Amino acid sequence: MVTDANAQALQRICDAEPVLVDVRPAGEVVPGLTPDTVLTSGAPLPWGEYHGGQRRAILGAAEFEGLVPGGLDAEAAGARVADGAVRLRACHDHGCVGSVAGVYTASMPVFVVENRAAGNRGFCNLFEGASPRRLNYGVYDAEVRGNLEILRDAIAPLLGEAVRALGGVPLRPIMRRALHMGDELHSRNTAATLLFTRELFPALLDLTARRPADTRRLLDYLRADYFFLRLSMAAAKATADAAHGIPGSSVVTAMTLSCREFAIRVSGLGDEWFRGPLPDVGAMKLFPGFGPADVEFMGGESCIAETVGLGGFAQAAAFPLQEYQGGTSERMVEANRAMYAITVGEHPEFRIPYLGFRGTPTGIDVHRVVATGIAPVIDAGVAGRDGGQIGAGVLSTPLACFAQAAAAHRRRYGS
Amino acid sequence: MVTDANAQALQRICDAEPVLVDVRPAGEVVPGLTPDTVLTSGAPLPWGEYHGGQRRAILGAAEFEGLVPGGLDAEAAGARVADGAVRLRACHDHGCVGSVAGVYTASMPVFVVENRAAGNRGFCNLFEGASPRRLNYGVYDAEVRGNLEILRDAIAPLLGEAVRALGGVPLRPIMRRALHMGDELHSRNTAATLLFTRELFPALLDLTARRPADTRRLLDYLRADYFFLRLSMAAAKATADAAHGIPGSSVVTAMTLSCREFAIRVSGLGDEWFRGPLPDVGAMKLFPGFGPADVEFMGGESCIAETVGLGGFAQAAAFPLQEYQGGTSERMVEANRAMYAITVGEHPEFRIPYLGFRGTPTGIDVHRVVATGIAPVIDAGVAGRDGGQIGAGVLSTPLACFAQAAAAHRRRYGS
Repeated sequence: MVTDANAQALQRICDAEPVLVDVRPAGEVVPGLTPDTVLTSGAPLPWGEYHGGQRRAILGAAEFEGLVPGGLDAEAAGARVADGAVRLRACHDHGCVGSVAGVYTASMPVFVVENRAAGNRGFCNLFEGASPRRLNYGVYDAEVRGNLEILRDAIAPLLGEAVRALGGVPLRPIMRRALHMGDELHSRNTAATLLFTRELFPALLDLTARRPADTRRLLDYLRADYFFLRLSMAAAKATADAAHGIPGSSVVTAMTLSCREFAIRVSGLGDEWFRGPLPDVGAMKLFPGFGPADVEFMGGESCIAETVGLGGFAQAAAFPLQEYQGGTSERMVEANRAMYAITVGEHPEFRIPYLGFRGTPTGIDVHRVVATGIAPVIDAGVAGRDGGQIGAGVLSTPLACFAQAAAAHRRRYGS
Repeated sequence: MVTDANAQALQRICDAEPVLVDVRPAGEVVPGLTPDTVLTSGAPLPWGEYHGGQRRAILGAAEFEGLVPGGLDAEAAGARVADGAVRLRACHDHGCVGSVAGVYTASMPVFVVENRAAGNRGFCNLFEGASPRRLNYGVYDAEVRGNLEILRDAIAPLLGEAVRALGGVPLRPIMRRALHMGDELHSRNTAATLLFTRELFPALLDLTARRPADTRRLLDYLRADYFFLRLSMAAAKATADAAHGIPGSSVVTAMTLSCREFAIRVSGLGDEWFRGPLPDVGAMKLFPGFGPADVEFMGGESCIAETVGLGGFAQAAAFPLQEYQGGTSERMVEANRAMYAITVGEHPEFRIPYLGFRGTPTGIDVHRVVATGIAPVIDAGVAGRDGGQIGAGVLSTPLACFAQAAAAHRRRYGS
């Protein structure tokens, strides 16, 4: 039964056809995202447990949305979250995935990605821009607010118009090709961003007559190599959710970080989070001027990429990543190959040229993780304790979560 | 002296700053390309020696240019070439490089690439489009003629306008990035084409108001992954020519194929061609329906890429090429690594991610080729005896040319 259920979960992941259909304010499209809601990354914690950059990001989001009328006085604003006037929820429970602290409010624009194979949707908000100082990295000031306003008022509406004019942009063909062009679609999205931009361009040729300045600004925005990450995340969420809820399946359908914990969900085990300690950082490369003592975890759900066989599970497609996150080609190949031992199968279309076009290892099986002792690896951005991105690295996930989940699965379905 | 001269040749190659400055009819910009000239690939041969696809391409070009008034009757048209009414010359002697048969006439548009470090120019004509039936692959019929007319009358003029509006497009940054995105800039140009297209977008946004239909057509044309090859070739020619003519240098500055021979030129040995037999085809992958007996050599100078450390010399940057030309990742790495033994140095900016960002092996030294017995490798398209492209493969160049050149170098400069 477990074998069949896992085969079905793998099939759902491999069959997914994510299509970007719109760009809209989150409040208009994300189920249950009320005007007083802030979504954040990670398995939910009591308010008092959020600290550092993730706490600052949550409060910044509330301020941006006008939910803390007194302004960003940490104590008063925090009280409004504590007493429920600001409704704090987990991204994953609303079809969203958060980058780092991952904060969403109703007015923030999101990508709407429809999985045309299963009919479900995934959402992700937009890359804030090239500055290392970004709300999702725990910084909120006038500059950050200004960038969020530009996204909301100029970038996102025009992007939405272009996407609708095209009748949607299929993401699977872009992702497939990007894996042949040095991307692993988590920490490297350079090619996917370019491929997406090319798809958009015919619509921009039409829009430029009416909105020349905004079109130029959008084109500049699309030059950020990181742009596509949020599309990769929304696509991966729409993909993983389609594999969730299959009775008997021991396939992981979500991995998430808060500032305190790493946690996973399993297809056949409902919405329970299996929680463990924060990951170890393996290979890591920090921007000049920062040291290991500056590193702070402030959440992160971009590892939805790894959940569907991308990112660290496709790193042998992305040797240029060495420059960004450290490591060597040999270690990348070794780490990538190791993932085949803990996954149910291989993606039929997402393939790794270096490995002779072998399909990416797809569908993490908690039992295989436990049996082999091989932890899933995650390519990740590294946040600094004072906020902002300070580098990138490879995370090795804690085995404890997988052991807990495997035990729960055995209790429920037998061994 | 040889060491210094070779260091200088390497420096000239590494310093090159190729910039696309214009797209113009060849007759307006290529030195010595008179209205009655046809340029073709390879060290020059007597007219009677050209056969098969290369002969057909030369006659097709002459017909396209209106140089054989009686039409494409092979005998009469050939007589006009034989008696000099059509002036047949070698591409390399006019700053041009030919793809496969490589035919140029005065009305055909060319990329004008200026090497801003040395002040010289290289030229290449344009990719004919996605059809395997192309003049440069020895086919000339109504369809081929129609495609050449579209290039001449619609694509090239608009492309030229866009390039001029941008004040030129620097190619080195595009080539540098493309090597991190799966291209080796000879048989794979997918990323470079996209990167170039993105640079062009802002100009296209302006042009679309006046010429909407042509802009759409140009955009479609730019979707061909192969588009950038001709820019890579023109850039490489402008680069290699800057290293030519350095007294004492034993560095190769041109490699060329005709339908009969492979030949090379050496920096310190003037314009003499050292000729040898056609290369062996190593790894090769033919399109469905073709076999090894269908393969025909009809010339080719895209190996100007290898002359400056790209193509086969950067193949470990382009594992996706396995799909196109056969082979395995392991053999690609091995072949690429072998090139370091026959080159003078490494490019400071063109780097191979898989090899820990090692610079590409650059500047083929004929003495090192002879001493090691390691032949330069070339990534190449494969032509079929009935015309058209029928596949792709890796060529191993004949050592005889290098031995001749090394002997001539020793006679001139001592050992």
